[in-house]
Amino acid sequence: MSYALQILETHPKAIDVEADLLVRCIDACFDCAQACTGCADACLGEPDVADLVRCIRLCEDCADVCLSTGRVITRQTEFDAQVARTALQACVQACNSSAAECRRHAEMHAHCKVCEVACVTCERACQDLLAAI
Amino acid sequence: MSYALQILETHPKAIDVEADLLVRCIDACFDCAQACTGCADACLGEPDVADLVRCIRLCEDCADVCLSTGRVITRQTEFDAQVARTALQACVQACNSSAAECRRHAEMHAHCKVCEVACVTCERACQDLLAAI
Amino acid sequence: MSYALQILETHPKAIDVEADLLVRCIDACFDCAQACTGCADACLGEPDVADLVRCIRLCEDCADVCLSTGRVITRQTEFDAQVARTALQACVQACNSSAAECRRHAEMHAHCKVCEVACVTCERACQDLLAAI
Amino acid sequence: MSYALQILETHPKAIDVEADLLVRCIDACFDCAQACTGCADACLGEPDVADLVRCIRLCEDCADVCLSTGRVITRQTEFDAQVARTALQACVQACNSSAAECRRHAEMHAHCKVCEVACVTCERACQDLLAAI
Repeated sequence: MSYALQILETHPKAIDVEADLLVRCIDACFDCAQACTGCADACLGEPDVADLVRCIRLCEDCADVCLSTGRVITRQTEFDAQVARTALQACVQACNSSAAECRRHAEMHAHCKVCEVACVTCERACQDLLAAI
Repeated sequence: MSYALQILETHPKAIDVEADLLVRCIDACFDCAQACTGCADACLGEPDVADLVRCIRLCEDCADVCLSTGRVITRQTEFDAQVARTALQACVQACNSSAAECRRHAEMHAHCKVCEVACVTCERACQDLLAAI
Repeated sequence: MSYALQILETHPKAIDVEADLLVRCIDACFDCAQACTGCADACLGEPDVADLVRCIRLCEDCADVCLSTGRVITRQTEFDAQVARTALQACVQACNSSAAECRRHAEMHAHCKVCEVACVTCERACQDLLAAI
Repeated sequence: MSYALQILETHPKAIDVEADLLVRCIDACFDCAQACTGCADACLGEPDVADLVRCIRLCEDCADVCLSTGRVITRQTEFDAQVARTALQACVQACNSSAAECRRHAEMHAHCKVCEVACVTCERACQDLLAAI
């Protein structure tokens, strides 16, 4: 069981959203940030790095936005729905752009395939949470 | 002269937006992240911390979103306007919410007054850049 | 299977350290960053927030240091052992201080107990990796 | 006057270290994080990106470590000297490695020259603060 769920279950404030949706999104954001950091680094180590410049850049952006969004939605004390919503929308877009570029390299580079899955999973989890808050 | 401007002036890619607007926004994001981290910490040290819970929470969010946005707009290689735009919109909202709460405590706590200025300045810089990209 | 392992297994560069040790440390850093962000927020929402000030502060520090360390050790291209080592040492200390403070509140607040486990797990994973690089 | 100084001057807790040393280090950490993010991105946009792989990697590490260190030393409530010291030591090393690599490319790429200055400045500010806490 992830720490996110354990901490939410013992949180002093009532959580207005279904815990499973929230936990899935929190975990997806942190996991995607790790995957994008790893994919950017693996791309940087490839002999054809010059063909992977756009992939590296978008993975770096996606890692940063996933981390800030993951932290924003982790916080449930004095929850501000507008801050959460715009952060989630930024995360949907960052994941979408990164997934699209990783997809182009997925046949050639297996780490791009893994990262595409991480980005698509995170994009969907953010959209599901957006629909619920 | 800030490092942001010096690095942009020597960047290999053509920058499509007025450098001054961009640099002002980059610097405002990093400065606001620092100010919000400091204000959250100063609030946490106040004897009336229980009255400052919302301020701490929103400053933490704002610091995180400003850092990710500041890094996204710093990057000019393979610039993706949609990623930049949604990140900037999240930053506008995080700064707006944080500024509004800091304003409520500005007479009592001078660090909240300083942080309000940082947030308002960053919100405007993000809106100006949004209007230009 | 975590994305960290999947991406390492498809990384173009040879990894000099046992993959299991490395993956365990990467995942522990990101998980601990999430847990500390959550515990700081849960503490902030408690009626006795004034007694939890040190816990909030150390969890904030630990979250920041875990994220930067998690990203540094995720990167395997042009690995710099000195940078990795000092980052891991900072992470050991941040986790140790945060765990010690969470332990003091673990009977009263279950989220502090969860966070203590996350911090102790991460501290050990960092020490194990330090011993191997 | 930087926000860092303004907020420290209105902080509820007594600051044990000379404010000027502390503010210089805080500002240097955030400035260096921005410069390293920018230099990594500029390197990624260069035609000879394959020769700049080590520079990109070390700048990414340095940006991450500078941000976490900058946030740790910004916080003065319930200051923990051991956490601050190990974070500063990690930052000294990350700046040192990044500066050394940027120096190798400084004649060819002006952004590497700018980034080297940012890293050296931050390394010294961290060492000066380390000597005082």
